[in-house]
Amino acid sequence: MKAVILAGGSGSRLWPLSRNQYPKQFLKLRNMDKSIFQLTLERCLKLARLAEIYIVTNINYKFLVLGQIEELGYRFDENHVLVEPSGKNTLPAVYYAIKEIQKQGDDIVVVIPSDQLIDDEEKFIRTIKQGENIAGKYLITYGIRPNKPHTGYGYIKPALPLEQGYTVDEFKEKPDYETALNYVENGYLWNSGMFMFRTDIFTEEVKRFNPEVYEAFKSSDINEIYERTPNISIDYGVMEKTERVAVIPLNIRWSDLGSFDAFYERFDRDENGNIAFNGDILIDSSNNLLYTNKDKTVALIGVEDLIVVDQKDALLLCKKDQSQKVKEVVDRLKNTNNPRVDFHLTTYRPWGSYTILEEGLFYKIKRITVLPGKKLSYQLHHHRSEHWIVVKGTAMVTVEGVESFVRSGESTFVKTGYKHRLENPGKVSLEVIEVQLGEYLEEDDIVRFDDDFGRATSNS
Amino acid sequence: MKAVILAGGSGSRLWPLSRNQYPKQFLKLRNMDKSIFQLTLERCLKLARLAEIYIVTNINYKFLVLGQIEELGYRFDENHVLVEPSGKNTLPAVYYAIKEIQKQGDDIVVVIPSDQLIDDEEKFIRTIKQGENIAGKYLITYGIRPNKPHTGYGYIKPALPLEQGYTVDEFKEKPDYETALNYVENGYLWNSGMFMFRTDIFTEEVKRFNPEVYEAFKSSDINEIYERTPNISIDYGVMEKTERVAVIPLNIRWSDLGSFDAFYERFDRDENGNIAFNGDILIDSSNNLLYTNKDKTVALIGVEDLIVVDQKDALLLCKKDQSQKVKEVVDRLKNTNNPRVDFHLTTYRPWGSYTILEEGLFYKIKRITVLPGKKLSYQLHHHRSEHWIVVKGTAMVTVEGVESFVRSGESTFVKTGYKHRLENPGKVSLEVIEVQLGEYLEEDDIVRFDDDFGRATSNS
Repeated sequence: MKAVILAGGSGSRLWPLSRNQYPKQFLKLRNMDKSIFQLTLERCLKLARLAEIYIVTNINYKFLVLGQIEELGYRFDENHVLVEPSGKNTLPAVYYAIKEIQKQGDDIVVVIPSDQLIDDEEKFIRTIKQGENIAGKYLITYGIRPNKPHTGYGYIKPALPLEQGYTVDEFKEKPDYETALNYVENGYLWNSGMFMFRTDIFTEEVKRFNPEVYEAFKSSDINEIYERTPNISIDYGVMEKTERVAVIPLNIRWSDLGSFDAFYERFDRDENGNIAFNGDILIDSSNNLLYTNKDKTVALIGVEDLIVVDQKDALLLCKKDQSQKVKEVVDRLKNTNNPRVDFHLTTYRPWGSYTILEEGLFYKIKRITVLPGKKLSYQLHHHRSEHWIVVKGTAMVTVEGVESFVRSGESTFVKTGYKHRLENPGKVSLEVIEVQLGEYLEEDDIVRFDDDFGRATSNS
Repeated sequence: MKAVILAGGSGSRLWPLSRNQYPKQFLKLRNMDKSIFQLTLERCLKLARLAEIYIVTNINYKFLVLGQIEELGYRFDENHVLVEPSGKNTLPAVYYAIKEIQKQGDDIVVVIPSDQLIDDEEKFIRTIKQGENIAGKYLITYGIRPNKPHTGYGYIKPALPLEQGYTVDEFKEKPDYETALNYVENGYLWNSGMFMFRTDIFTEEVKRFNPEVYEAFKSSDINEIYERTPNISIDYGVMEKTERVAVIPLNIRWSDLGSFDAFYERFDRDENGNIAFNGDILIDSSNNLLYTNKDKTVALIGVEDLIVVDQKDALLLCKKDQSQKVKEVVDRLKNTNNPRVDFHLTTYRPWGSYTILEEGLFYKIKRITVLPGKKLSYQLHHHRSEHWIVVKGTAMVTVEGVESFVRSGESTFVKTGYKHRLENPGKVSLEVIEVQLGEYLEEDDIVRFDDDFGRATSNS
């Protein structure tokens, strides 16, 4: 069996936790030491071998995908990371992977979004695998058994029982509350966005119901394909059209983390319905979600039904049941070119990451983490000098061609205009405090001479 | 005329804005370039000359008082800063100042709290000065003409008209809303906590109504005095007892900033009743006070009647009309020895200040500001090395007896166990980024050899 992980979403409904350049699937949530994407990958490894997994994403997330897999200790084939030139919804994304898989022959494929949380993993794997028994005849969609009349999900109505699962009576869009109540009482299931099918059957149905998509993918140029293919979901484009569809119920605790309201539902609450850290002080306050920094002292007085998401550079306060409006916040921020739509204070690069600790008029302080064996580009800045203080690990520093080691507790200095490179030759992460001084301290003051990541000709 | 400024309050009802070691009177509020104390001092300078002003405070705030006066460009007589060994409410504080003033003979004195905001300063000065006409006969209290039935203030009922102001019928404690409504309709005034009287008359009344206070102050040892004197307010101890009391109405916009509800009333609101920065995003939200950092992106969705005070290390969310419970938060934090009751991330020292920018496992980063002409103690640390990068001004650095200048853009390094001193020999503030490295990074790892501020034998 092959597995396709969809990892191209931008997660804007979870701003400011999720940012365009580092969306929710790559976040490590509170109390979790792995990201949602990493958990998804490990789950997939119980369904398919690493070499049988394909990941569809976009160019901005490619090194995040590879970096997070590397962090798990796996070596992943870069050719299995399929980079979409633009987002055209799930049908082109899935079909892109199917076409790649078909180069090695037809097979059964399971399609899994990278941004869902699943609790009972053993049951999950067992149920997903049941699909193999009917994948010779059906396109299978997995339906979650509802635990409440949720208005945020699409619904699937099962019809006649099959060897595994059911035929499908109909698909339903997100309902209002009354309708949802009716659905739940009548055995409808939540549409999970997970699928299983044979590549040949799927291709037949794409050709039949979406000839434009099918034709677009005949090109060998991926840019041309994505210019031509329409923007369409796999549900709307195939699953809701074909009569060869089956649904298998998944009776597990599941969350798509689609909004902060879903967050509130997902995490454990105290006796007053609050989700908070131990040290937080809550007076006459109930049913709140406090997603804040553990090191910060948070106090609530007389507050109810509030979602509080506090990051160093952004604070969101949102009344519960209104979290769908977070998208409106993101739209407004985009209109004012607010960089906090795209970036966290920590920016991830192929070689590691940097966090802006403080910006003054003529200085900027960053904490830089360089992954073992990685190096930054050989570069110079016209407008700033840089002081590097190594706080962990050992750095190999090159200045104007002269190499030297700078060890933990030591520091070095790069004058304005000098060519330099920072490198981690060691086996553990290198941590450096960088103090930049100058009258212009933006990222675009950089001239690259050599780069491991092909950026020597750009400013990225 | 002499003036007494009361500057010993701890402002705990304004946490986290106000902290024990740097309370509200020393804060520069949003859009203000001077602190409330500084504004009070400048206001007093329209009533009395600098040499005629006395400031009562405690030892923790002494250098804040002196530093903030110096910042205004004045040289203040240190002997006019009267340091109370402990807080015993306003009667001992005022009487302490009166006894000091009487050493030079009797005079008229105006007593002004350091933590009030006043809008119409010219009218304020004019009205305060009217007291001089009746100070030969009366102890004068100033009463604010109410603009609403406030339940957070005490009330004064004026009786018969005098040459200036009125005799007083009675003093009233903070009322409930119905009573406050009745007071306002019947011409009662808010008790402002500002007074004027002759020192000899005041002393007579203290002797008459508070013999214990009077007797305690006969000692020449201030510690002994404060051990003996009861804890009592000037209102309860004298003004409400004496028949020689008059009230002069002040018809000005006034706030004691006694709570965040008072903050909300004091600042200008937009058409939805919100107080926020321009860049803040407010969707379906009204009547909120956002007291946040201008550099932070703040978004509200569906939030009403909420007070939001966001600092880097602490976040308070408080439903309006419940801000008196902030004191409860402070009490709880005290019980857990949370340092955020006492300190901001910025700590003020006699020589300037430092701000903790980041704390890691084995490193700490501070921004240090050294005032012109000031120097830190000559010191050493057993457990940490220090890297100093000068970002503004010029530093004189002494390491093991060797002096050198470190200029803007330059850096230096102090090894663990080396004696060192940082000094600002210049005319503008010196700004240094300090990166500490070591396994123990607390403030008490310090041995002082010489100190301008008498701290060579202590760890403070």
